[in-house]
Amino acid sequence: MEQFLQEAKAASRVLNELSGHEKNKILKEMAEALRVQTPKLLEENAKDMADGEKNKLTSALMDRLFLDASRVEGMAVAIEEIAGLKEPVGHVLDGWITEDGLKIEKVSIPIGVIGIIYESRPNVTSDTAALCFKSSNVCVLKGGKEAENSNKAIAKVLQDILEKNKLPRALVSLIPDSSREGVNKLIKMDKYVDLIIPRGGAGLIKHVSENATVSVVKHDKGQCHTYIDKDAKLDNAIAIAINAKVQRPGVCNAMETLLVDRAIAATALPQLKVAFDAAHTQLKGCLETQAIIETAHATDEDYDTEYLANILNIKVVEGVEGAIEHIVRFTSGHSEAIITENISAAESFLNAIDAAAVYVNASTRFTDGGAFGFGAEVGISTNKLHARGPMGIEGLTTYKFKIYGSGQTR
Amino acid sequence: MEQFLQEAKAASRVLNELSGHEKNKILKEMAEALRVQTPKLLEENAKDMADGEKNKLTSALMDRLFLDASRVEGMAVAIEEIAGLKEPVGHVLDGWITEDGLKIEKVSIPIGVIGIIYESRPNVTSDTAALCFKSSNVCVLKGGKEAENSNKAIAKVLQDILEKNKLPRALVSLIPDSSREGVNKLIKMDKYVDLIIPRGGAGLIKHVSENATVSVVKHDKGQCHTYIDKDAKLDNAIAIAINAKVQRPGVCNAMETLLVDRAIAATALPQLKVAFDAAHTQLKGCLETQAIIETAHATDEDYDTEYLANILNIKVVEGVEGAIEHIVRFTSGHSEAIITENISAAESFLNAIDAAAVYVNASTRFTDGGAFGFGAEVGISTNKLHARGPMGIEGLTTYKFKIYGSGQTR
Repeated sequence: MEQFLQEAKAASRVLNELSGHEKNKILKEMAEALRVQTPKLLEENAKDMADGEKNKLTSALMDRLFLDASRVEGMAVAIEEIAGLKEPVGHVLDGWITEDGLKIEKVSIPIGVIGIIYESRPNVTSDTAALCFKSSNVCVLKGGKEAENSNKAIAKVLQDILEKNKLPRALVSLIPDSSREGVNKLIKMDKYVDLIIPRGGAGLIKHVSENATVSVVKHDKGQCHTYIDKDAKLDNAIAIAINAKVQRPGVCNAMETLLVDRAIAATALPQLKVAFDAAHTQLKGCLETQAIIETAHATDEDYDTEYLANILNIKVVEGVEGAIEHIVRFTSGHSEAIITENISAAESFLNAIDAAAVYVNASTRFTDGGAFGFGAEVGISTNKLHARGPMGIEGLTTYKFKIYGSGQTR
Repeated sequence: MEQFLQEAKAASRVLNELSGHEKNKILKEMAEALRVQTPKLLEENAKDMADGEKNKLTSALMDRLFLDASRVEGMAVAIEEIAGLKEPVGHVLDGWITEDGLKIEKVSIPIGVIGIIYESRPNVTSDTAALCFKSSNVCVLKGGKEAENSNKAIAKVLQDILEKNKLPRALVSLIPDSSREGVNKLIKMDKYVDLIIPRGGAGLIKHVSENATVSVVKHDKGQCHTYIDKDAKLDNAIAIAINAKVQRPGVCNAMETLLVDRAIAATALPQLKVAFDAAHTQLKGCLETQAIIETAHATDEDYDTEYLANILNIKVVEGVEGAIEHIVRFTSGHSEAIITENISAAESFLNAIDAAAVYVNASTRFTDGGAFGFGAEVGISTNKLHARGPMGIEGLTTYKFKIYGSGQTR
């Protein structure tokens, strides 16, 4: 593992010498090569699918794992879209002349070597490889073991294009030891690896965060709330609440708990109940909620659970202060929303809540690189530092100061 | 410790409600209170000095520890300068309207609770407390045990002003258990602490980096190089090399190794030798250097040592490529310089070297918040992410996205 990462680190230097034009040409060749190699990719994917069947993976996991010609085409198109993004390195972020006459430029540069640990979704292999290459980073990939044959085949296609262009295969590679021990080594190799991005289950993310000496950008859970204030337009509020819970319950920006202002609970809750019943949402309410509409009972444990399913907690709170108090206690810092027409209530909420994305009058489902207009998304960071919230390709860059003098000394 | 940090976290909410005007007024009161309490501060400092004497601290440590009226005045002035900085939170860093009509504002916000572990310098207590308060962060401080009485007295003065202004004393506090175990607890409390800044010895920084689950911004060693290219103005080169090594050898941005282009070694080295001899610098050279001038012998271990003293390694290299090769191997990513009049050599160097600050024709000694024009410095980060290089007060902020909708759903 150490030698492998040493090679990855060494390879990163050649990326400095590639122009944006060259990188984009290579990315387009990679996309084309995936198309050409579709039969081979499907053949390798079929092996993973057969193993998955044997190992009784859930249908959701099998669906994530599965490739067909249209999904491979989707991977190729995604790479072409990444090629089309604005060059993320060499951007002058700031610049000034100091009192000593030094000209300082703060310039975006690649992070270096990025380790990505992810679930068994083969398209993540090509997406992240392309995002890293576009931003002049080396990636070392550790995909889910269920997708091993698919990932190896995809990586080989990309590496063959690198080699054809006289670049080291080490610019994009799968880690040689993908066991738990291999991962444990990877996350401690701060000498060679500059950033680890873990994607996947809470257990993995916790393990990586607690044990890594390399910097980590987490993509952790979303315990998202929506608060309906007494000054909300109730139609808006119901439409947003339904959207935030129901449109795609299995994702991190879906709502888990709905907070309702006590002042409007008696009128709002029955209407919400009708709407959520129509959407087949399973409701759990606080005692006050249960006094108005029929629901199961919500406990503190429920308020702390990311259901990732069509289940919703409802709690009655005392105005915006009550909402803030509940959210401060249970937020995961992902996305939180207030529905109100009142400026003071909206601003109190937006300022008091410490989350990556705080909304007034919109669904938390918008927390996503595409919806934000970032073009391609590395993920949604739950870190507080470096990259927070939807993480576009500039999240894969850092900066250096270039200082131009003419003989200055202190 | 957990309860203490819980209180610190809870206290952080009141900072959202303070205007810049109120914060600055309180900072000025803190400065004034330090002045008024000078006799008490000197009395407590005298206890630390007496203990230091008893424990046979080095004269350098004793000097760092010592307070007199003019040093207390310096602390007060530093707080007033921090009060005068531009408000660092609430700054709109970016803003746009998405295709869905959402108005997104990316706004700077405080990081939250910041733990600072530092050496036995009492002024760091008031400086960091003021920097954190100005940026609306809670600070939990762990100073060197040699300065315990001084730090307690300083913290009390600041806390009394907080209380006078009806603010929680927990906004600025010393951790209750300042033992090694206390520190070990602190750095794992990611539930309450958002950032740890360790300052001080390499051992401390390594320990914190390896064991923290909280994010860490390191202020680590500087293994800085200066490369004299064949196209350098030799007078410039000698002046810069002398400045980088001699002006203040004990700091992280001082040069440890001088690289000299083989093409000019025979003419440059004798002149450098005269200059460094005059500055009483102890020289260690590679074999090629030793064939031209008289020096001790430099080993790979020397190239990897931050002397923090008036000692210098000299190595002859083959042009800018040779310099880059040596630096890539030994750099700590702090500050690196090339002295040349040649544009291609300068740009190759600036692009290839991965360090926080890369210089052409200036001394690495300029890597510092004051010289960069940042006004007040939190430190010099050797992190690659979040804050890199000289870290001004905006290094104590992060951001959130505020999103204004009008009923949008997906």
